[in-house]
Amino acid sequence: MEASKKDLTETARQVRVELGDRSYDIVIGRSVLGSLGTRFTSLFPGSRAVIITDCTVAGFHLEAAEASLRAQGIIPSVVVMEPGEKTKSYKGLIEACDGVLDTRLERGDLVVALGGGVIGDLAGFVAGIIRRGMRFIQVPTTLLAQVDSSVGGKTGINSAHGKNLIGLFNQPHLVLADTAVLDTLTPRDFRAGYAEVAKYGLINQPDFFEWLETNWQGIFDGGPEREEAIARSCQAKADVVAADEKEANQRALLNLGHTFGHALEGMAEYDSERIVHGEGVAIGMVLAHEFSAQLGLCDPAITDRVVAHLQTVGLPTHIGAIPGQLPKVDLLMDYIAQDKKVSRGALTFILTRGLGQSFVEKDVDPSVLRAFLEEKLN
Amino acid sequence: MEASKKDLTETARQVRVELGDRSYDIVIGRSVLGSLGTRFTSLFPGSRAVIITDCTVAGFHLEAAEASLRAQGIIPSVVVMEPGEKTKSYKGLIEACDGVLDTRLERGDLVVALGGGVIGDLAGFVAGIIRRGMRFIQVPTTLLAQVDSSVGGKTGINSAHGKNLIGLFNQPHLVLADTAVLDTLTPRDFRAGYAEVAKYGLINQPDFFEWLETNWQGIFDGGPEREEAIARSCQAKADVVAADEKEANQRALLNLGHTFGHALEGMAEYDSERIVHGEGVAIGMVLAHEFSAQLGLCDPAITDRVVAHLQTVGLPTHIGAIPGQLPKVDLLMDYIAQDKKVSRGALTFILTRGLGQSFVEKDVDPSVLRAFLEEKLN
Ligand SMILES: NC(=O)c1ccc[n+]([C@@H]2O[C@H](COP(=O)([O-])OP(=O)(O)OC[C@H]3O[C@@H](n4cnc5c(N)ncnc54)[C@H](O)[C@@H]3O)[C@@H](O)[C@H]2O)c1
Ligand SMILES: NC(=O)c1ccc[n+]([C@@H]2O[C@H](COP(=O)([O-])OP(=O)(O)OC[C@H]3O[C@@H](n4cnc5c(N)ncnc54)[C@H](O)[C@@H]3O)[C@@H](O)[C@H]2O)c1
Ligand SMILES: [Zn+2]
Ligand SMILES: [Zn+2]
Repeated sequence: MEASKKDLTETARQVRVELGDRSYDIVIGRSVLGSLGTRFTSLFPGSRAVIITDCTVAGFHLEAAEASLRAQGIIPSVVVMEPGEKTKSYKGLIEACDGVLDTRLERGDLVVALGGGVIGDLAGFVAGIIRRGMRFIQVPTTLLAQVDSSVGGKTGINSAHGKNLIGLFNQPHLVLADTAVLDTLTPRDFRAGYAEVAKYGLINQPDFFEWLETNWQGIFDGGPEREEAIARSCQAKADVVAADEKEANQRALLNLGHTFGHALEGMAEYDSERIVHGEGVAIGMVLAHEFSAQLGLCDPAITDRVVAHLQTVGLPTHIGAIPGQLPKVDLLMDYIAQDKKVSRGALTFILTRGLGQSFVEKDVDPSVLRAFLEEKLN
Repeated sequence: MEASKKDLTETARQVRVELGDRSYDIVIGRSVLGSLGTRFTSLFPGSRAVIITDCTVAGFHLEAAEASLRAQGIIPSVVVMEPGEKTKSYKGLIEACDGVLDTRLERGDLVVALGGGVIGDLAGFVAGIIRRGMRFIQVPTTLLAQVDSSVGGKTGINSAHGKNLIGLFNQPHLVLADTAVLDTLTPRDFRAGYAEVAKYGLINQPDFFEWLETNWQGIFDGGPEREEAIARSCQAKADVVAADEKEANQRALLNLGHTFGHALEGMAEYDSERIVHGEGVAIGMVLAHEFSAQLGLCDPAITDRVVAHLQTVGLPTHIGAIPGQLPKVDLLMDYIAQDKKVSRGALTFILTRGLGQSFVEKDVDPSVLRAFLEEKLN
């Protein structure tokens, strides 16, 4: 093992999410998964555990998670789901709830979400509603989940009406982000998560975006830049979440690229073959910059720079890159209108005035947006 | 209209549930449903509404609810469910969620639960998870819902594993208990709700139980005793809820008769033809007194007195009164073990030392309980 990949358990980074009596730590480092058992028992002595995971993740990392718990005398139950966005559905919810109820665990026991954003969102929701609330721990295993979905307490599933329309704010009690588990991700899934890392730069940290332009290769290769990027991303998200847990204001900035992205995921019926969340976010961020430029808010050269970096790492940057038929404008507008970030008719979007200068615009005229999309789709 | 049934809107009673910034009022009186619209707009100006109800309730009272909202310029959407306990299921949850999402209401808009405990529990849960939480108002239309389920924020659905195993603590923003709507209840449903009224006496208010022994007829007939009984019941529940929202201690007393009752409902597969919740509670309360007597805790004469009063109002008081096959002990024990009120192996029960002297016993020996139940079933 190269020096740059040495075991960082001892030197794990810690980011605290400050939420009063629901505060919790995000522990980041290579091989921190091995500390799951000791952290579990020191936080929740006497509690039992059920691990919710998907079968792909289970194949790579379940044994390590179980072993760590077993070493502390905890024999976890396991609920294994199908991988993929379709698991964040009513069907997946029922399956996971029944799976947890089968274990007969009690309210004080813990759900451990071992997986990407799909498992984290589902398991966090399930933990929040079984017996009106069990405790839970996030063990995010994708880059996306480590920098985004496992932090902040948004949990839930999709419905035919759109993404994440059913769910809860439910904060975990601990997040354990083992950066070594990302080594088994497909390049495509790694890249998708990288879109969310870049997002933090584009929201309000131009210096971080610049750092990424220079250091992205180390992140992909598993060098120390990976921990650095994940810790900075988590800190950025934790700051926003602490300031504004339920999204009235600042938290909305985290949705940069997401209203477009969710619409694209929706029109593709959450078919991971065609598009995954991070790819939708990448295309959505580009669209947000292009739309800002068209509204005269932002220099088009900034869009070019964003596109260039996303392309360098291999992310899609325009709607045409999604395999299959281009969506109809009506369908996209429909998804956009149904998105949670709509307020009384006017559309709310995250727009930008420059590199890392995003802001919430609550008054986007639907007809201007439609014209913009029509152009994009021709 | 007799004097005793005069419109009490002006003189509606109000019980406040004190929960800090989630405090709310329970408004109790004949015809207070007519004030839904004005109360709605004064609490939530500019918000829209979706009414969730069942088709039986809709037939009797939907028009009045809609008219009251319409008079204030609010055109509510309506989601109509099947009546009955089976609506508190995954299937009912999906149907109600999709129904609310169809309306395209937003997070600041309101869900109005118009119905009995089934609708209240379901709609409160749905309100808590659509868009990670819409606001909601309870308009309880059964006696049971007015004195119990609409107050305190417990919401949820059943699963094959047992009652209310999936749900949330979600406090309403207002409870509007129109005592006149109870006039359309079947006698059986009215009686079932009365079991919960009697429960408050049996928990810790022997004077209230005595008052009920004398005044029950006025409650059934819709005299002023009805408002009195409902207000006292709501006050009793509100006090407990304010002291102990999440049931660590005192709130558990509200479960008097419920561990047995839930098991009976479960073994009957929530088939309302065989048993409804309040009937289960009535039988369960008798069992709790009998079990307490057998443990030498409580004078058997108290059980006789409880049985006598419940029989007087027409409630069932023993397992044999449930139509169909008697349950197997194993099945009952299984339901009891799966009940939420189990803690680390030992069984928790609400037992009593006398009339209105209930207490939480956390250390019931399962084998003693099994022997007691075996005797009951022979
Ligand atoms: N809650 C939030 O705040 C939030 C934020 C952003 C995204 N999300 C949600 O996150 C989801 C996307 O997350 P995701 O991209 O992690 O998806 P995912 O969970 O589906 O993971 C992507 C794929 O990677 C596999 N995988 C996971 N970990 C692996 C590992 N270590 N090695 C090999 N394979 C692994 C999974 O089996 C899956 O096939 C979306 O549903 C999105 O809505 C939520
Ligand atoms: N959340 C809590 O704290 C809590 C407490 C106690 C009970 N509960 C739950 O409440 C449920 C039982 O409540 P319920 O007894 O009200 O059942 P319910 O809602 O099924 O109502 C009983 C019947 O009465 C009908 N009905 C309702 N209002 C009517 C009216 N005004 N006129 C004519 N018919 C009317 C309904 O259609 C139904 O058929 C159970 O699921 C139980 O678990 C919850
Ligand atoms: Zn995202
Ligand atoms: Zn009850």
